[in-house]
Amino acid sequence: MGKAAEKEEGAKEILEGFGDSILADIGRGKNPKFVTSVRSRSNIIYDEKNGFLRLGSSKEERNFLNVAQSKRFMQTVAICSKCHKFVDENLHTSIRGLFYQLKYSLGEEIDENIFNEQSESNPLIEDIEVALNVKREDLNLNANRKGVLSGDVRILDTFGGERLEIDASKMGRSGWSIPSNVDSEMEFTDIKAKYVLVVEKDALWQRLNEDRFWKKDNAILISPQGQASRGTRRLIRKLADTGLPVYVFNDADAWGWYIYWTIKTGSMNLAYIGREIATPEAKFIGVTMSDLEQYEFLNKMTMRATEVDLKRTQEMLSYPWINKHKEWVAELKKVLKDKKKLEQDTLQGPRLTFVGDYIREKISSGNVLP
Amino acid sequence: MGKAAEKEEGAKEILEGFGDSILADIGRGKNPKFVTSVRSRSNIIYDEKNGFLRLGSSKEERNFLNVAQSKRFMQTVAICSKCHKFVDENLHTSIRGLFYQLKYSLGEEIDENIFNEQSESNPLIEDIEVALNVKREDLNLNANRKGVLSGDVRILDTFGGERLEIDASKMGRSGWSIPSNVDSEMEFTDIKAKYVLVVEKDALWQRLNEDRFWKKDNAILISPQGQASRGTRRLIRKLADTGLPVYVFNDADAWGWYIYWTIKTGSMNLAYIGREIATPEAKFIGVTMSDLEQYEFLNKMTMRATEVDLKRTQEMLSYPWINKHKEWVAELKKVLKDKKKLEQDTLQGPRLTFVGDYIREKISSGNVLP
Repeated sequence: MGKAAEKEEGAKEILEGFGDSILADIGRGKNPKFVTSVRSRSNIIYDEKNGFLRLGSSKEERNFLNVAQSKRFMQTVAICSKCHKFVDENLHTSIRGLFYQLKYSLGEEIDENIFNEQSESNPLIEDIEVALNVKREDLNLNANRKGVLSGDVRILDTFGGERLEIDASKMGRSGWSIPSNVDSEMEFTDIKAKYVLVVEKDALWQRLNEDRFWKKDNAILISPQGQASRGTRRLIRKLADTGLPVYVFNDADAWGWYIYWTIKTGSMNLAYIGREIATPEAKFIGVTMSDLEQYEFLNKMTMRATEVDLKRTQEMLSYPWINKHKEWVAELKKVLKDKKKLEQDTLQGPRLTFVGDYIREKISSGNVLP
Repeated sequence: MGKAAEKEEGAKEILEGFGDSILADIGRGKNPKFVTSVRSRSNIIYDEKNGFLRLGSSKEERNFLNVAQSKRFMQTVAICSKCHKFVDENLHTSIRGLFYQLKYSLGEEIDENIFNEQSESNPLIEDIEVALNVKREDLNLNANRKGVLSGDVRILDTFGGERLEIDASKMGRSGWSIPSNVDSEMEFTDIKAKYVLVVEKDALWQRLNEDRFWKKDNAILISPQGQASRGTRRLIRKLADTGLPVYVFNDADAWGWYIYWTIKTGSMNLAYIGREIATPEAKFIGVTMSDLEQYEFLNKMTMRATEVDLKRTQEMLSYPWINKHKEWVAELKKVLKDKKKLEQDTLQGPRLTFVGDYIREKISSGNVLP
């Protein structure tokens, strides 16, 4: 609610509001303060009702007139000031670029840096995201991007003063590269697809893209190319908001499951923007341990689960957002018992195009994990 | 010469020629053999005249009727047979996909695998590339892809039976994602750019892309997004073949230099396709240690060179393809003396758009390293 209202307000106005509140405090002879949510593990909760990880209610206050806090207060204001400038100029940079601007700022005559290491500025950016209820991307700070998409969808990208129409069904072998920011001056229109298919590995995405699976099966085909970036997670959320079902097709191992749960419920370290990037509606297509019963040939293609896989499997069984699903408990217990894992690439064994048949069968039969 | 002729022949015919030679040997009562070049360090030479790393003349022969070699001979033939099928079907996969097909092949009744680990099949693929003078990509085996491009160039991608025209000046914030294979059924036309600019980090590429540097300066803007993939290296070679100068803009540290020299002279592990992916014409824009004299503000932005940086710097000074350039000897000696390194991101210090000004100044003054 407040969120949407503030979004319309724009990052610039939000930053100016913060500046105004500091000035008002000073004018009234009050100690300027900055209130943010605690982001440590103790304040990360699983929102049972909505199905994602988010921050709890613990707050942290930072005061200017406090010897232990004044430096961080000053640093926070310096970051806000820079971001305000970026938004005002309509120019973007990375958090590394921001760090170097802050290093430059004080000029040669002052022998003190605002920041010495980027490890000082990064957590303060997160503070600001939480306190001002604004994403880093809205502050014109790009995150690393990764991820690719093809399918019957048109992307309107207002860029360099031009309004470009990018047709994601005409991107050939490459696909459309998912940017850091999929919100500002970007729209997704003319979506003709019936569902979203997320494929862990780029190699498998390429396989399905070559088969024009997205065309034949009317899907939007996405690969996060490993762990999903903020931009890719945000885009999956946005596509789910249009009412499309989301299916995820990953390896049956610790990494594949982690990628799935990150897309579905969000992650600990980004719990502070949980709602924006989690897709609790997502379902897991496979590969799964029960595929070994259905597809005989897969049995000669399993690998031994490593210690890491087994340790992670144990941990997952302890998470309430996972162990509330009996299907996942069964899957993970099978892993602990048989100590096996399985890659999605194995589905190319009988023939290269078998991958698509497997996905079709899974979706049409509804044999997917929650 | 032989190369070009064989290229026109096509991978399918090359593989069939190899099959025919085996059959002919058997028909004549001879021991079927397979001759490839040795790929170990001792047979990697720097081709002084052409400026890239390539294999020397040491050959290795593998015979079918030799207890120590017959398994590998059989494996090699099995790989060729699979690749022949992929080319015939016009379908692509990864080397992991190939491995699983080979695992599947023998059927359930035979309790022996052709391959147990992918580490067995990978070097044999390289053997085939060398012996048959054909790239992995021509055998329909995709490599990992990475890298992005924007600029005034049109890409003709024949894909899924359609001939797509992709305009790399209309790709917005994303850019065109460089695929694994930039040769087969792909053409680059209507190139209006005057030069190619390769930018190590994607974050800096995004910075320059947002400034529409490629438009204003008539450049093709590429980022390998770190170390350059085979596809990106091949594409840079192809663009250089059209007569465009190639400039590389990287960090001044061990990793940035390594990325540069890999683009320029190729790398040890891909020396066997050196000619196809090296761009000896490339020049290094920076950042450099002498930038610290020209741009005062950079002095507060250096970092201490790590032990790894210094060790690598020493090694580089011993490579004949590097130490023949007095400019590089001076640069590297400065690093050893001052023990500093510098990131390209620092150029955003004074203002975000300064990066483009720096590049313009470097190119127009010719103040680049060979």
